[in-house]
Amino acid sequence: MCFVELFIIDIQSGGKRDEDLILPINSSLSVTLHQDQLKTTTTVACSRNFQQDRIWLNGKEEDINNPRLQSCLQEIRRFSRKRRNTGDSTSDASSVSHKVHICSVNNFPTAAGLASSASGYACLVYTLSQLFGVESEQLSAVARQGSGSACRSLYGGFVQWKLGTQLDGKDSLAEQVESESYWPELRVLILVVSAEQKSVGSTSGMHTSVETSQLLKYRADVVVPSRMEEMIRVIRERDFPAFGELTMKDSNQFHAICLDTYPPIFYLNNMSHRIISLVHRYNQYYGETRVAYTFDAGPNAVIYTLQDHLPEFVQVVRHFFPPEVNGEEFVKGLTVCSADLSEELKRDINMEPTPKGIRYIISTKAGPGPCVVKDPNHHLLGADGLPKKSAISH
Amino acid sequence: MCFVELFIIDIQSGGKRDEDLILPINSSLSVTLHQDQLKTTTTVACSRNFQQDRIWLNGKEEDINNPRLQSCLQEIRRFSRKRRNTGDSTSDASSVSHKVHICSVNNFPTAAGLASSASGYACLVYTLSQLFGVESEQLSAVARQGSGSACRSLYGGFVQWKLGTQLDGKDSLAEQVESESYWPELRVLILVVSAEQKSVGSTSGMHTSVETSQLLKYRADVVVPSRMEEMIRVIRERDFPAFGELTMKDSNQFHAICLDTYPPIFYLNNMSHRIISLVHRYNQYYGETRVAYTFDAGPNAVIYTLQDHLPEFVQVVRHFFPPEVNGEEFVKGLTVCSADLSEELKRDINMEPTPKGIRYIISTKAGPGPCVVKDPNHHLLGADGLPKKSAISH
Repeated sequence: MCFVELFIIDIQSGGKRDEDLILPINSSLSVTLHQDQLKTTTTVACSRNFQQDRIWLNGKEEDINNPRLQSCLQEIRRFSRKRRNTGDSTSDASSVSHKVHICSVNNFPTAAGLASSASGYACLVYTLSQLFGVESEQLSAVARQGSGSACRSLYGGFVQWKLGTQLDGKDSLAEQVESESYWPELRVLILVVSAEQKSVGSTSGMHTSVETSQLLKYRADVVVPSRMEEMIRVIRERDFPAFGELTMKDSNQFHAICLDTYPPIFYLNNMSHRIISLVHRYNQYYGETRVAYTFDAGPNAVIYTLQDHLPEFVQVVRHFFPPEVNGEEFVKGLTVCSADLSEELKRDINMEPTPKGIRYIISTKAGPGPCVVKDPNHHLLGADGLPKKSAISH
Repeated sequence: MCFVELFIIDIQSGGKRDEDLILPINSSLSVTLHQDQLKTTTTVACSRNFQQDRIWLNGKEEDINNPRLQSCLQEIRRFSRKRRNTGDSTSDASSVSHKVHICSVNNFPTAAGLASSASGYACLVYTLSQLFGVESEQLSAVARQGSGSACRSLYGGFVQWKLGTQLDGKDSLAEQVESESYWPELRVLILVVSAEQKSVGSTSGMHTSVETSQLLKYRADVVVPSRMEEMIRVIRERDFPAFGELTMKDSNQFHAICLDTYPPIFYLNNMSHRIISLVHRYNQYYGETRVAYTFDAGPNAVIYTLQDHLPEFVQVVRHFFPPEVNGEEFVKGLTVCSADLSEELKRDINMEPTPKGIRYIISTKAGPGPCVVKDPNHHLLGADGLPKKSAISH
């Protein structure tokens, strides 16, 4: 079970209403990306023989006492007991009192601003819910305890995370706007910028934004509510130019808020700036928004475009960021046809090429929410309850 | 006559109320820097023998029909005629009908985000006022026609440019808050970042911010008015920590607005980010704001600090941005004493050094407003009304 989600309008990252409950300060909308390209796989096992809860992430045992992890485990066990007490449960009555072993791997780089923790927590909560027999309606709230945006990653396609109004956060839940098959022409590229282009670490976390950014409150109270409505409308109308423009504006405003934080937070670097500039110049050449960017908490760009414009834009990226490697090494994931660029287009874009500025591209699209991995060969824990060799060497 | 000004709270750059009149959308405050380090020198001559108005900038003849230049010339001639008609003028009655030759040089790089156009227009307007006998109270309005922030550069020390409320902009004027001698311990460093670190050009101008940034209006209406009051108070109290924090926050917010513009505008680059990070880490080490940064429309940092902390901070800059050149080649302007850095400080700042990231430093302080160059040897135009060799080779 698996996936990753990527923000269109980010919200939760902009600051949290309540640090413990992880409530957002504004609603948000995301696209869940396809598992074939960006996937978290998690196996959970429980046994009366396990001495303690344990977790392995990407082949390495991690501290199970991580407070967010503990919140998730406690919450899901609480829901499971509650359900059993009301006689609703179909799962093994004893399992909830057993210790669990958790093993999880991502098939994409973690901590690269690709929402790996959202993906990870959503996958974990979904997997635990299968084990403990917890209803899906309750998962959103549990996942939120791990990583706020994880609640969006429990659904496929286009998902919104509603702000909610209750102080206890019970109505701050994710719901699907449209499924992953609603807009099949929409394609996604992740441009992974080179490591040496990484920005200098920030000395403050995102929660500082809530305390220090004067612009954040205005964004949350005034800008985002109207943008959310418009975003849902343009997705339903499959209006790419409007979708693209709104996506870019909101990404920029999110990073503006980071900059208005004290001390300021920088996620965009020179290479991100160049990608942004390239997208605007490309769109300007055609006099319409054919390509859009959005950046999460890192310098890597997520590009949205329509199937028809994909080959040319990938070629544009190749031209202005001549890669070190070629072919599949550079463009991973869904196949992208080759395309020729007109001299006029290259001249009009008028940018100095930046060799090796982009390490590789992941080509993908919207995908489904978590699903159960049936084939036991793909499970990550062996019969002894410990990670299989394949899960460790990952 | 000369100087340059540098923004503390920028306003006008954030967008203009009226493009023709060049009215700001919020008030602003600046420090005029010392002419010994950053100076515009302008010579103006008029003669019945001149065929047309002409201008030479930094040794090169430029188009006199530049609309802003024309506005300044027309306005100052209009004021001069008006004054003569009321019998107030002490200047040569005929001069106003003659054509002028203008020659102007900066002793610092233009277009490096060091407000060279503000300095240039203020100097030009001041010089023309001497020639045509125009009262100083009217210069603010004339200078504003050239470059909005030029009106602030007509005064020394700490200067505010008041927003004003009249539609015709007549009350949008600069006035001195305190003179350059009010806070003698305050020192200024300009960190000129290396050319290869220059950010990619922006496709849109600052006026786009007014049309597209949703956050700008909130900044102008809500944030800046209260910050202006506070800024004037902390300058009058010579409260460096408060002055520094406010300066940094406002610089960051200005650049946040640039990022919220569509398409976005980037002035800060990776090197600017590193300087910002260094300043925050340095202040954090001491648990107080000893150093502050501000950035205008470019990647170069303007650093404020107090005399006492200057030598150590310059040494910190040398350590984390090991220069290509040493001694006076690296630190130009006012002498900075040498200082030793403790191992603890270097360890605590914990940043990877960036060799050659900063090209050179200009060490300066607050300075006076424009003044007349009496020595004819320093005039830039010869007896023939053409630039002297020295002005061309500059």
